[in-house]
Amino acid sequence: MSTRPQQKPLPDQVLTPVTVIGLGAMGSALAAAFMAAGHPTTVWNRTAARAVPLVAGGAAHPAAVAEAVAASPLVVTCPTTFEDTVEALGPAAGALRGRDLVTLDSGSPEGARRAAQWVRGHGARFLGGAVKNVPPAVGAEETLLYYSGDAEVFGTHEPVLRVLGGDTVYLGADPDLAALYEIAVGGTLLPALVGFFQGAAALRARGLEAASMVRFSERWLEMIASVLPVLAREIDSGDYSEPLSSVNVFVAGAAHDAELGREAGLDVGWHEPFHELLDRAVEAGYGTQSIATLTEILREPRPAA
Amino acid sequence: MSTRPQQKPLPDQVLTPVTVIGLGAMGSALAAAFMAAGHPTTVWNRTAARAVPLVAGGAAHPAAVAEAVAASPLVVTCPTTFEDTVEALGPAAGALRGRDLVTLDSGSPEGARRAAQWVRGHGARFLGGAVKNVPPAVGAEETLLYYSGDAEVFGTHEPVLRVLGGDTVYLGADPDLAALYEIAVGGTLLPALVGFFQGAAALRARGLEAASMVRFSERWLEMIASVLPVLAREIDSGDYSEPLSSVNVFVAGAAHDAELGREAGLDVGWHEPFHELLDRAVEAGYGTQSIATLTEILREPRPAA
Repeated sequence: MSTRPQQKPLPDQVLTPVTVIGLGAMGSALAAAFMAAGHPTTVWNRTAARAVPLVAGGAAHPAAVAEAVAASPLVVTCPTTFEDTVEALGPAAGALRGRDLVTLDSGSPEGARRAAQWVRGHGARFLGGAVKNVPPAVGAEETLLYYSGDAEVFGTHEPVLRVLGGDTVYLGADPDLAALYEIAVGGTLLPALVGFFQGAAALRARGLEAASMVRFSERWLEMIASVLPVLAREIDSGDYSEPLSSVNVFVAGAAHDAELGREAGLDVGWHEPFHELLDRAVEAGYGTQSIATLTEILREPRPAA
Repeated sequence: MSTRPQQKPLPDQVLTPVTVIGLGAMGSALAAAFMAAGHPTTVWNRTAARAVPLVAGGAAHPAAVAEAVAASPLVVTCPTTFEDTVEALGPAAGALRGRDLVTLDSGSPEGARRAAQWVRGHGARFLGGAVKNVPPAVGAEETLLYYSGDAEVFGTHEPVLRVLGGDTVYLGADPDLAALYEIAVGGTLLPALVGFFQGAAALRARGLEAASMVRFSERWLEMIASVLPVLAREIDSGDYSEPLSSVNVFVAGAAHDAELGREAGLDVGWHEPFHELLDRAVEAGYGTQSIATLTEILREPRPAA
């Protein structure tokens, strides 16, 4: 059940002090997890009120961000974007030297590269990471976090970082790899949710509860997950000729979207780009090949309207 | 582990004969599952060649669809759409009387209602269903199928239908409920896949394998599944005021789509309708409320461009 290190320290153990910058829902969850594991924890947030519950639990909370950074060899940042992090750390630039900075921000690979350059320029080591789950899942054995950047930072602090989630992975030395995977992996979220919301709206229009579809939707997402290895193999090999599901199967299904719109009085216009991608795949001769050929279509420039 | 009925019949058991009409990948899998469970199985397909492997396994295969329908009290149809099914069954209309027809087609609720009317008009009972999985999963304990329509058909044949998947559910008497849930639940598939393909394309552009993100994407889909009960509760209660994820969080993330497009040379134009839905939610005053408020936006007529 658990390869996770023991969380409550023995009295004579000295655990790595950690500073957490940025106390939104995720940053607060990170700080709480470090505190629960017994790490001396310092927090800082632009809006000081956010720190109150953590301070009540024993976190240090200096007024100046430079003081917060200076308090720990390991600094974890969790403002919304890399740009926000660099801005927040600005007054603390002089305190960065010799420390290890781990970003759990979101943002683009380019933002990660720029942040890494700035951080290293001030004499700190950089590890960029991402929490692939919601704040309440921080600290759970199955929660996934991945990191990229300075291998020594990961090597030194892996046991500390594992406090945030048992499924902790190092992707490689490039500082932007975690941000790249973050966007690559995260791209299913909003589209899948809008698909769910459309289904919920269709049921509500019929006087049925959205809750009645949840168990089925969970199973459906499991089914989608189960075909990803096959689709990835097709994409990596470039052999789309023995499809589990062909483009044509999805073309046939696309006709139902408009019918659903009429039936349930829904705005189904958000499907149009999907229909357009399918059309382009058919035009490219992929009709009887795998739906994964859409990967090739996405890599082409979009035709002028 | 198993509430599934024993599949191999005792010598003195007579299992319900079943006819399967439509032998695409799914129809063939359905017929094979009935045969594996020991049901006398008759198959029919417009293109007879598709029946060859099943006939080799012992299935009867009359040339005329009317003869195939007449062979069994339970007829399962699996052409692509309801319209295809009605067309295929046309020459067998006179043979339908007194039989139970179970559709495992895809299609709109309206298509299901029309098919039910046609089938009942020829003296058969109607049960509309859907297989919520891929053909290779037919017959597995965890495979989900749901049905709606004549309760007596489900009551009589539930043990037979359970041969197709252990998670077999009756939704209610309306003949189109299964089709409605099919579309409601299925709406996450193509959007989620395109999200995955975009991620795969971004990794490929960087010289990384799509396979390297599969484990992370599986975890991410699990995360999405884990928040559906919360989102459904918000939608059913209409209380979006204590969001797990707000509209504004997704608005902040939307800016990264364009950056990814530039970085990896991808067509990210398919995100535009999502950005538009987010904009409309913000305009409607939902910015700080749950992302599930998009359900309300989808229920409004789309504004003129």
